[in-house]
Amino acid sequence: PAHAAPSADDAHPVLTNAAAISGLGAQTEGYPLFTAELTRMRKSVDAAMKAGIDVPVPKDPGGGATHEQHKRNYMALYGAGMLYRITGDKRYADFARDMLLAYAKLYPGLGPHPAAANEAAGRLFWQSLNDSVWLVYGIQGYDAVRDALPPQDRKMIDEQVFRRMATFLSTGSPKVFDRIHNHATWANAGVGMTGYVLRDQDLVDKALKGLDKSGKAGFLRQLDLLFSPDGYYAEGPYYQRYALQPFVIFAAAIDANEPQRRIFEYRDAVVLKAIRTSIQSTYGGYFFPFNDAMPDKSLKTEELYQAVAIGYAKTHDPALLSIAQWQGRTVLTPQGLEVARALAAGKAKPFPFTSLLLRDGPDGNDGGIAVLRDGPGTKDQVLVAKNTAQGMGHGHFDRLNWILYDNGRAIVTDYGAARFLNIEAKDGGRYLPENESWAKQTVAHNTLVVDETSQFGANWKSATATPHQLWFSGDGQIRGSIAEMAGAYPGVTFRRALVQLSVKGAKSPLVLDLLRVNGSKAARYDLPLHYAGHLIDTGFALKSNVTTRPVLGQANGYQHLWVDATGTPAPDNGVVTWIEDGRFYSYRVATPGVTMVLGESGANDPRFNLRREPFILQRLDGARDAAFVSLLEPHGRYDAAAETTTGSESAVRSFTHRREGDVDVLTIGWRNAAATVVAIAEDTDPAHAHTLVLNGKAQSWKGPVGRFEMPKPEGKSR
Amino acid sequence: PAHAAPSADDAHPVLTNAAAISGLGAQTEGYPLFTAELTRMRKSVDAAMKAGIDVPVPKDPGGGATHEQHKRNYMALYGAGMLYRITGDKRYADFARDMLLAYAKLYPGLGPHPAAANEAAGRLFWQSLNDSVWLVYGIQGYDAVRDALPPQDRKMIDEQVFRRMATFLSTGSPKVFDRIHNHATWANAGVGMTGYVLRDQDLVDKALKGLDKSGKAGFLRQLDLLFSPDGYYAEGPYYQRYALQPFVIFAAAIDANEPQRRIFEYRDAVVLKAIRTSIQSTYGGYFFPFNDAMPDKSLKTEELYQAVAIGYAKTHDPALLSIAQWQGRTVLTPQGLEVARALAAGKAKPFPFTSLLLRDGPDGNDGGIAVLRDGPGTKDQVLVAKNTAQGMGHGHFDRLNWILYDNGRAIVTDYGAARFLNIEAKDGGRYLPENESWAKQTVAHNTLVVDETSQFGANWKSATATPHQLWFSGDGQIRGSIAEMAGAYPGVTFRRALVQLSVKGAKSPLVLDLLRVNGSKAARYDLPLHYAGHLIDTGFALKSNVTTRPVLGQANGYQHLWVDATGTPAPDNGVVTWIEDGRFYSYRVATPGVTMVLGESGANDPRFNLRREPFILQRLDGARDAAFVSLLEPHGRYDAAAETTTGSESAVRSFTHRREGDVDVLTIGWRNAAATVVAIAEDTDPAHAHTLVLNGKAQSWKGPVGRFEMPKPEGKSR
Ligand SMILES: [Zn+2]
Ligand SMILES: [Zn+2]
Repeated sequence: PAHAAPSADDAHPVLTNAAAISGLGAQTEGYPLFTAELTRMRKSVDAAMKAGIDVPVPKDPGGGATHEQHKRNYMALYGAGMLYRITGDKRYADFARDMLLAYAKLYPGLGPHPAAANEAAGRLFWQSLNDSVWLVYGIQGYDAVRDALPPQDRKMIDEQVFRRMATFLSTGSPKVFDRIHNHATWANAGVGMTGYVLRDQDLVDKALKGLDKSGKAGFLRQLDLLFSPDGYYAEGPYYQRYALQPFVIFAAAIDANEPQRRIFEYRDAVVLKAIRTSIQSTYGGYFFPFNDAMPDKSLKTEELYQAVAIGYAKTHDPALLSIAQWQGRTVLTPQGLEVARALAAGKAKPFPFTSLLLRDGPDGNDGGIAVLRDGPGTKDQVLVAKNTAQGMGHGHFDRLNWILYDNGRAIVTDYGAARFLNIEAKDGGRYLPENESWAKQTVAHNTLVVDETSQFGANWKSATATPHQLWFSGDGQIRGSIAEMAGAYPGVTFRRALVQLSVKGAKSPLVLDLLRVNGSKAARYDLPLHYAGHLIDTGFALKSNVTTRPVLGQANGYQHLWVDATGTPAPDNGVVTWIEDGRFYSYRVATPGVTMVLGESGANDPRFNLRREPFILQRLDGARDAAFVSLLEPHGRYDAAAETTTGSESAVRSFTHRREGDVDVLTIGWRNAAATVVAIAEDTDPAHAHTLVLNGKAQSWKGPVGRFEMPKPEGKSR
Repeated sequence: PAHAAPSADDAHPVLTNAAAISGLGAQTEGYPLFTAELTRMRKSVDAAMKAGIDVPVPKDPGGGATHEQHKRNYMALYGAGMLYRITGDKRYADFARDMLLAYAKLYPGLGPHPAAANEAAGRLFWQSLNDSVWLVYGIQGYDAVRDALPPQDRKMIDEQVFRRMATFLSTGSPKVFDRIHNHATWANAGVGMTGYVLRDQDLVDKALKGLDKSGKAGFLRQLDLLFSPDGYYAEGPYYQRYALQPFVIFAAAIDANEPQRRIFEYRDAVVLKAIRTSIQSTYGGYFFPFNDAMPDKSLKTEELYQAVAIGYAKTHDPALLSIAQWQGRTVLTPQGLEVARALAAGKAKPFPFTSLLLRDGPDGNDGGIAVLRDGPGTKDQVLVAKNTAQGMGHGHFDRLNWILYDNGRAIVTDYGAARFLNIEAKDGGRYLPENESWAKQTVAHNTLVVDETSQFGANWKSATATPHQLWFSGDGQIRGSIAEMAGAYPGVTFRRALVQLSVKGAKSPLVLDLLRVNGSKAARYDLPLHYAGHLIDTGFALKSNVTTRPVLGQANGYQHLWVDATGTPAPDNGVVTWIEDGRFYSYRVATPGVTMVLGESGANDPRFNLRREPFILQRLDGARDAAFVSLLEPHGRYDAAAETTTGSESAVRSFTHRREGDVDVLTIGWRNAAATVVAIAEDTDPAHAHTLVLNGKAQSWKGPVGRFEMPKPEGKSR
């Protein structure tokens, strides 16, 4: 049932429909996912209760003892609240009360955190973001036990803990609270939910519409500006995951308390889109590691347990159940119970992982992420082209970057963030200096670098120009993305076509990569490719640095690259092959006049802050207009158990490129003497037709990309 | 039933009790493991039949097309034989016949293989070893179909294929056949089984006792010399796995044809011991990668499917069933059927993985491998001290080396072999030059290097001196190994004590490492530690090579080591911490006057033949007598999903070493102010008692190692 507006001295739970889980006790046994969660939470909260209340004076940065204790406390508080509701066991309410009374003693006397760095200082934590997270968890736990507390305790906790926190995080932190940013979302959510629990509509209104209640800031404005019409979050998948939690939890609380707002229908149901888009932005359950991202983040996180449960409760979409099944987890809320019930009833359907274009920008006009999936399976190849806007302060200078997953692995990689989350010895778990000097720089990505500098001079505030997604095709024989970027480098426009080419007999598709540059003056153009695997062979001779290993450059990320070898391929031997998890990958280039550099990250790294990962770099010197032409071919299999190798040789015999009028013609000659021609027209209008003479015969196609199978080698047509 | 001696024109199967599986057909359905195997084999053989007979003229080296085809052929032949027996489907017998008739045409005309390298040339393959493997598989397949063939085909195949092969591999290859070596075992097994099938006792006798039938060579002599009394194989676990197959298969064939030989009881049941010892030589199912070993080799290989099935059929030990369960595979033989039946009946019991000393050498006097297990689980810590003899040509110069597994991972590592098995672009899959220049060298291991040279000058033929295993204790509070080595370096004796120290509250044990050196003159002593993980922090200052990376030395493996940094720890800060899979490892040294070198393998590697892996090296210059004193402490946990870190700080406050008389006293001071003292006496007699005054109180213990818990820090006792 929807909740009626509560009176001021009413103390019953308001954030969720608590009645749905009240006193469930042993009734959960038919829903194993929920029961497992209950057992896990009991174990964890019982241990916290046994350890006793510990509310230390804040002292340590991320990963330190007081930091971790306050994190454990909000988790325990949240858990105790849920457990009290589900089991009716008063000990859980007493524990939450005792802990909150300890906070009521500590909190009012706190000033800025002693370990505060350059970001907004918190009181319990080194940054106020963590304080907001504390409030989001804490207020949920408190809401669940509040009606079990004597009025004087309730008053003390209301005023000395939650109202003070909400005040500090709202009017006390205007710069954070009124931002359009995920830190603000956490603050808005914590403050707004506190408003519902304290029956204080003023706090709720500020959370929804900003401190001045004008709607220029606050939760609703963030829903307008931080998500694209496709539910893509401005900072990218990693932060989408992180940001999602306050969005979905606060939305659920708004829905419970002010159903008339129809918050889940707001802006064409953007909250629900955001949940699905988060899931689409993964491979094997792991988020695409664009921008400041930790590569070990998967759907198995608290944020997504909440999002899946809330999304399922709202939509009853059975595809979300299969995600919960993969997660093997849910949450101890009425929504989590619904998920567990439906799973137990066998209602799960596979999640429809698919190719899609996720537009970026509030209006969907700032480029986007093009996801090309060879299939919905966890081992199917996925190519992702990152043609988005900057993504604010956590954005990387990586316009027209791409990554590739194949055979269940990341093959063409993005470094993600230079950070050891929560590891105190690594700068307290914060972003490391190498995040600026390496991870964000253009050369750390698989995209064009001009004159050894980064896009926009690596200044994100001036990185306002965005790519144009000119074409996208997600299925059929011609799958690909064409995008163009101007303004990242003065006087330089570059356009990239990435085509995922399914070929009969090949275990997974080949990837064609055509990157054209138009510059206003001669420059050095570099196109790096960061890959995972062990180098097996090169088709061209190498000049190797075997006894001293130099760095590639002096700045803009180049100082972090060791050079192992360089080489100058002839037209017919520009190939590098590596192996990853038993599969071979041949990277073939048809870039005229190119020099190849092979090396590894990790130079200028006296504190061992970087992972050491290999790269290949195509270099063109003194070029103005140029085309980088590359082909990546997965092939073969080495089976360690059976000691057999199949297809270690590439199926490609030749790879050439020519330009005819405004059409780029890329020809893959196969070992069996047949050939595949891919023609890419300058004109990207999907309705326009083009013609080309191949082997003496005129061939036509519509839209920018045409594909033609030739039974025998294709000769020059003129 | 045991098989009666067959008459010469009898053609029924003799290698196994074929009646047990004859015409089973759908009866296997209650035994899922066998049924799955049947399905798999049908799929594979049916595909081979569909592809048609392809018996090419031998041309390519390992990994090449003709190599792989002949491998596929012997697998198909074996499979067709088993399938014919089980299903009674004549098409399988016809396919085997047709293929063998093609071999009967090809084989007689073959000379030495055109791609033969420096090893003994085969005819079908580049080395005769592969020909022997072909024969072992081929004769089993042939035995199964022989009674279905017309006499003239049988005669043709008997004479033109099998007798010729057996002749070539025995009298035609005396140097291989009469060796004491796994290559000879394959030859002996193939020839001996061919003897049984052709009813030719002369071939059998040669296989058992050598070409001159004196017993100085042949299968029985190999059982005497290649295995220790504990069933440890001279070349180490990787080759033990490989070698096991001909031993167990030929043993089963001998048992079937000459039960009076009691082959499974031979030499105190050494064949059965060898099977169990192979399994004990694994972690998480993967073999300890000592000597020339590929680290990706697990129990999931054909050799071990055969060994487990044959071992189970002979002993009915239910622990072997749990191994079959983990393998998820078995073989299509009567023995495999027994395994599948017993598994289906729920008879499996956990395999008793345990601490043990596996002695090396025919008499068990050539040192051994000391395995210290913290428990039988797949994530329990395992320390392995390698105190064995050389292990012939595939042996590494690694006396008193050690490795460590923890938390399911290899933590202190052995490089294994420099080789890309079956990958043609890497020297045809053969051992690479770096196997000599790096992988075998002492510095590639975690043991003492004197004056930047390898043990025995890296000459295996002169590497006859073996370690003395002075003490071993596999369970209780004091688990450890003490071994001593003399003769690896002129004038140098070194002794190493490794103690696995379980500590209350710690998730897994700490490892104490005391390596004492006594030399006849001043020298440079290096003690490398190769580890897996990402470096987090050092307690001492580093001098780093950030813009050019030099190599550590010029030869003996040193040329393959890049130097990232060096440092000189003070007595209280000699600690390096890394993280692997969310767990921290602190390596603490109390070696007086030590210089630390941090770096990575991969220098002088123009063909990218090496993996790049980090190392720490302790260096003492100008020393004569010295002690390397180290402590490795696993601690804490970073949980990426929950974003929590626990115990990232070491529990150790101090680590000191002193010598009192003939006792080394190592003291670990804990952060809670208590201390643990480990005393290691020079006298390793387990019956002798020792006394030490600690904190003013006399403490006694028996055997070399004593352990004492001190409630407060232990002061110098004098
Ligand atoms: Zn990036
Ligand atoms: Zn080794």
